[in-house]
Amino acid sequence: MKSALQTSVAATALLAAGFAAMGTAYGAESFQDVMKRRGLNEKDLLAAVKTYTPTGGRDEFLAFSSGGQSGQVIVYGIPSMRILKYIGVFTPEPWQGYGYDDESKAVLAQGRIRGKDITWGDTHHPGLSETNAESDGKFLFINDKNNPRIAVIDLHDFETKQIVVNPIMQSEHGGTFVTPNTEYVIETAQYPAPLGGGYVPLEQMNEKFRGAITYWKFDREKGRIDPSKSFSIELPPYTQDLSDAGKFVSDGWSFTNSLCSERYVGGIEKGRPPFEAGCSANDHDYMHVINWKKAEELYKAGKTVMVNDHPVIPMKTAIEEGILVLIPEPKSPHGIDVSPDGKYIIVGGKLDSQAHVYSFDKIQAAVTAKKFAGKDSYGIPILDVKDAIHKQVPLGLGPLHTQYDSKNCIAYTSLYVDSQVAKYDYCEGKVLDKISVHYNIGHLMTMEGDTAKPKGKYLVALNKLAIDRFNPVGPLHPQNHQLIDISGDKMELLYDLPIPLGEPHYVAAIAADKVKPAIRYKFGTNSRTDKPSEFAVRPGGEKIVRNGTKVEVFGTAIRSHFTPEIVEAEEGDEVTFHITNMERAEDEVHGFAVSGQDFNLSLEPGKTASASFKVDRPGVYPFYCTEFCSALHLEMEGYLMVKPKGAQQVAGKAEEGAKYVKADFDKQYKSCLDTQAVIDQVVAYITSTNFKDFPSVVALVEDATDQLNFAKDARAKADDAAKKEDWQQATLWAGQWWQYQVKAADIGLRAKTYLEQNGAKTVK
Amino acid sequence: MKSALQTSVAATALLAAGFAAMGTAYGAESFQDVMKRRGLNEKDLLAAVKTYTPTGGRDEFLAFSSGGQSGQVIVYGIPSMRILKYIGVFTPEPWQGYGYDDESKAVLAQGRIRGKDITWGDTHHPGLSETNAESDGKFLFINDKNNPRIAVIDLHDFETKQIVVNPIMQSEHGGTFVTPNTEYVIETAQYPAPLGGGYVPLEQMNEKFRGAITYWKFDREKGRIDPSKSFSIELPPYTQDLSDAGKFVSDGWSFTNSLCSERYVGGIEKGRPPFEAGCSANDHDYMHVINWKKAEELYKAGKTVMVNDHPVIPMKTAIEEGILVLIPEPKSPHGIDVSPDGKYIIVGGKLDSQAHVYSFDKIQAAVTAKKFAGKDSYGIPILDVKDAIHKQVPLGLGPLHTQYDSKNCIAYTSLYVDSQVAKYDYCEGKVLDKISVHYNIGHLMTMEGDTAKPKGKYLVALNKLAIDRFNPVGPLHPQNHQLIDISGDKMELLYDLPIPLGEPHYVAAIAADKVKPAIRYKFGTNSRTDKPSEFAVRPGGEKIVRNGTKVEVFGTAIRSHFTPEIVEAEEGDEVTFHITNMERAEDEVHGFAVSGQDFNLSLEPGKTASASFKVDRPGVYPFYCTEFCSALHLEMEGYLMVKPKGAQQVAGKAEEGAKYVKADFDKQYKSCLDTQAVIDQVVAYITSTNFKDFPSVVALVEDATDQLNFAKDARAKADDAAKKEDWQQATLWAGQWWQYQVKAADIGLRAKTYLEQNGAKTVK
Repeated sequence: MKSALQTSVAATALLAAGFAAMGTAYGAESFQDVMKRRGLNEKDLLAAVKTYTPTGGRDEFLAFSSGGQSGQVIVYGIPSMRILKYIGVFTPEPWQGYGYDDESKAVLAQGRIRGKDITWGDTHHPGLSETNAESDGKFLFINDKNNPRIAVIDLHDFETKQIVVNPIMQSEHGGTFVTPNTEYVIETAQYPAPLGGGYVPLEQMNEKFRGAITYWKFDREKGRIDPSKSFSIELPPYTQDLSDAGKFVSDGWSFTNSLCSERYVGGIEKGRPPFEAGCSANDHDYMHVINWKKAEELYKAGKTVMVNDHPVIPMKTAIEEGILVLIPEPKSPHGIDVSPDGKYIIVGGKLDSQAHVYSFDKIQAAVTAKKFAGKDSYGIPILDVKDAIHKQVPLGLGPLHTQYDSKNCIAYTSLYVDSQVAKYDYCEGKVLDKISVHYNIGHLMTMEGDTAKPKGKYLVALNKLAIDRFNPVGPLHPQNHQLIDISGDKMELLYDLPIPLGEPHYVAAIAADKVKPAIRYKFGTNSRTDKPSEFAVRPGGEKIVRNGTKVEVFGTAIRSHFTPEIVEAEEGDEVTFHITNMERAEDEVHGFAVSGQDFNLSLEPGKTASASFKVDRPGVYPFYCTEFCSALHLEMEGYLMVKPKGAQQVAGKAEEGAKYVKADFDKQYKSCLDTQAVIDQVVAYITSTNFKDFPSVVALVEDATDQLNFAKDARAKADDAAKKEDWQQATLWAGQWWQYQVKAADIGLRAKTYLEQNGAKTVK
Repeated sequence: MKSALQTSVAATALLAAGFAAMGTAYGAESFQDVMKRRGLNEKDLLAAVKTYTPTGGRDEFLAFSSGGQSGQVIVYGIPSMRILKYIGVFTPEPWQGYGYDDESKAVLAQGRIRGKDITWGDTHHPGLSETNAESDGKFLFINDKNNPRIAVIDLHDFETKQIVVNPIMQSEHGGTFVTPNTEYVIETAQYPAPLGGGYVPLEQMNEKFRGAITYWKFDREKGRIDPSKSFSIELPPYTQDLSDAGKFVSDGWSFTNSLCSERYVGGIEKGRPPFEAGCSANDHDYMHVINWKKAEELYKAGKTVMVNDHPVIPMKTAIEEGILVLIPEPKSPHGIDVSPDGKYIIVGGKLDSQAHVYSFDKIQAAVTAKKFAGKDSYGIPILDVKDAIHKQVPLGLGPLHTQYDSKNCIAYTSLYVDSQVAKYDYCEGKVLDKISVHYNIGHLMTMEGDTAKPKGKYLVALNKLAIDRFNPVGPLHPQNHQLIDISGDKMELLYDLPIPLGEPHYVAAIAADKVKPAIRYKFGTNSRTDKPSEFAVRPGGEKIVRNGTKVEVFGTAIRSHFTPEIVEAEEGDEVTFHITNMERAEDEVHGFAVSGQDFNLSLEPGKTASASFKVDRPGVYPFYCTEFCSALHLEMEGYLMVKPKGAQQVAGKAEEGAKYVKADFDKQYKSCLDTQAVIDQVVAYITSTNFKDFPSVVALVEDATDQLNFAKDARAKADDAAKKEDWQQATLWAGQWWQYQVKAADIGLRAKTYLEQNGAKTVK
């Protein structure tokens, strides 16, 4: 029998022979030459075919990654590991117009802290909405650690719709985690502080600083969190960290870990050991076990106190009502992860070496029997770890976070210090495999791996250091997300994805076919409220409304012009532009910006967006389309003319430099007729095929028809002017006719190419 | 002889046989299974091996892409097509601390327009610095179309160092283009407006609106543009567009195209045809040919007028001195690109179908002979196109931009309307190949393809529409950069890269080995001035300075604590934190943020950064490290305590919740000694190898030595306290000793793994 090495050598030889022959067919270099030149081995080759995605190919999973301090969410595909989108969440982002149009400024304004704009966020844990404990692909939640906030993103259009500010916390980390039907989005405090704010000296930390957990009620129909139906529970001044909601047997419960249960107060500047020493002195910290269904009843029964107008169940009440117990957990834990069947909770301690597998059945039995080992300083009952633990699995140094496989009883835990991922059977407590990653892994993530139905197949290691993995790009390195194949018995490294912006903390992945985003908005939509914009106008209804010092423009955009093109205002006026994109075609986005002003609109098909600003200085300010949209994109322009106060009208009229005579008109007209012949040919080709079987071609045809209707209108105007022998207007309108023709031809050619490349058939 | 198809079939069979055997060696699935499951053909396979880059692999080229309306620059590797970094330029970006620390706010403040913050930019054309007309990898320039500005990025650390505002333009597009030794960075106006600003009615457009070109002087030694040595030339009110500088024979000249030489003034709202019609009525626009060396002499001789304190050579002077002529060029052009030898200039018109290849020799001959065909309305001499043209090459619809190959006389031009790239011999005027792209290509880019020494190999098509190429992510689509192999006779599509943020306009690529970024800063550097920060302190020198209502913190950061940890201030105080990262290790970045405040510091090793803010409300505000740095990262925290005005000192002292006795100390101490034994083993292993041959391991060893020295210090403190039987302090300091050990062990293990995986040898 051959050894693995011999097999490999034999394979290489066959491979070389095969591809050498292909050389002439597909490129100047042979396959063998390429592998040699690029230093690739067979393992690399297998990884390449497992990840390479040719043009037009689709990824099997979509990953939603926190963007860390970028304040954004990152979307990438698996297995191609190509980043598809950055979604602006807490940080303004001009490409999307997020924070650069009036509509999205209203969303960001919801996130003000005590009236102050906070223009970034430290995003940590994205959470996908669930139905029956399975990801449903409808909504995404993401938190801000530094200024405790939660944002809601609608996966209908991948836009941020809402930001809620936690009314009682000064800091958090543990968000967002959803209950099995997204009844609630869970957020927990991090560094203890007085609940609701205010100054309390450190000397009173033990008595007056507190932690907390907030259950944010989610209204699925509205697609928004309802703060008026949300509540919190007061917790001890431990540093609460991550949470997870129970499911099935453990439904109605949630689990939150903590660190620094030593309640250390630091002070290295006074010669005291730093926080890191004082917060890691004990062998254990505490898991908080909370009966949230019963807490919800207490809240509804009014057993709360109001802190900043927000209902909080006092710790004392929580203890008396038996909805809160503690269990010792390994030192400095991070992940706390409920198994797919809801029966187990796995915790890793970063300064420990074992996965602690807790049994919910055991916990429930001990709680029901009131079998407590003691109480903490605040009177919260503590379970004996022996009465709660199922297994302790020795994994290695620095267990940090756990995710589940589609296979029964299989889990993966990241090992921060060892820079490894461990695969193990948590039912039996047996390690099955380990793989080294590069370097210092934080979280890890499997496909729908924190739901009731993990999909297996892939795992992503979110490494905290990249160091030498990529071409150097300065002292600030990208992060490194490593894709690992978990379909076989042994884990295999497939791909290194550099994250070019932000330091992601956690990622949630979902089967791509569950996410069904729209390709356009209904005509005239305010995408941030998901309602018709009161500022949308139909073509022909464009207007400029002046009211005292307010100038309001109700405009439209279409390839390749804005209506209106010339807007006049006076120094000191407040100007608002509302622009509606009249396009229906997929990906036919326009932008809008005015020189000297600090805004940018991103106008996807059907969207209405607005920009309000003061014109504080007389001048001539060009505006233009900021998203390349057509051959005449650069000509999609206009002027905002800001007159000095009381400026007089100037004699004469605005005149173009070029003058046209009948010969110019005739030439242009002939050109239009010639172009029409070409268009007719393309149309004949398309309609001779089964183009209706290709949805994207159907959309293109619809779009081209729009352009040809516009062309007809421009032609009529040219004909009219010609009748009056106004060769200037006649030539210009004939030119406009030709412009619409060019757009129609552009679309038609694209459709033709698509049909040719995708095997369309002649139908008659 | 076999046909290509037969060869392909044979290859597949061989391949399947080869990889089927490999199945057991490398994964559960056979190679054949994977290809079948993923629907890949042999062509895909070849593309995969030409692009797939295994962990630790390096890209051959670095591409610097404009980020469009994101206001950033995007850096990606070729051929892996992985995005390595987004660099904040005109838009604040919190991950990098750009616009979120005092130092970088000073850079953004340089970009204010008439005193107003403009928090985004519409970046268009990145330009790499050149020496002898070749890319030298030192600096990158990028422009802002909407608010005419140029930014300077130093490739030493990939940070934005400077923003200059154009003092006379209201709009631009044509930047940045460098002269052969980066003497000047060229910027040209786009939409005409009165030079220097101010209101002029549209009725006077022809007389008083103007275009312009600015030559920004670059001071290579300082790495900054010197506005005091920069000048402009007044141009007619055509819509100037892109430029390029001559080289070799054409050195000293620059070329700028234009559109809307019709000088149309729009007004669709008044029933006039829109700009797009009026700006595309003529068959041609004008190329501006400028003798910039002679212009420089005129500027130095004072033949300028001052506009906003900026010297401008009047159009009249330019005409009289013979430094400006026009040549007709195809309608609505975009790219204008000088050949590697400086002999030809190729222009494509988006509403045309030919590449126009102009000969510099011919142009120079006609200019010298003063053989003009006429003058424009402003008296600028116009060359007859016949006297300037070398070839007109029929390419297809919508020629937009041209790049050059390493092979003599070979160029590539993008065809916007046809969605194709054409390869042709511009010396002979012969089309060689065409490839379809997806969809509507704007610019294209070859490796160093606009320099004197193009590198060939790859071409990137910057497509304006992606439509159906990727998994859908809402109405706003990513852009699509398609990598094309140009090494053979036929162009071959290799890879589709979605651009997840911003709409890039142009990209410049350079051989990766020319770019040599630093991995750390000199201790205490202000990275935005590249000078030592006056606010840096060495370890032990940390201090808090109070001066009236100003509180200034001079602090440090190191795994895993800040010094100081507790900072007190009073309501209404102005607080400044200056933090220096004491780390030396590659990629060991810390961050710093305070709850309730709108800033984030990104502290790369050696950097000093500052944040100033007012504390307007009493409270307890946690601060923490925002970049995951170590196992105790979450414990890298502190508090900013803001007292109400006149608050009294509270009795008692800040006390941790946990109390420690001798047994706790003994246990911790023993744990430290045990850990030391492990560390000693790792050290013994490393020092037994040829680790000095591995630079990254040498850096790790240096770093671990730092941590062990800190450990020694903490141990001494523990020993001291134990002598005094202060078991609280003794236990905590022993804990801190252990923390440093954990960090040393973490680094040591990483070094050990690296050595094992990279074939280190035992040396004794």
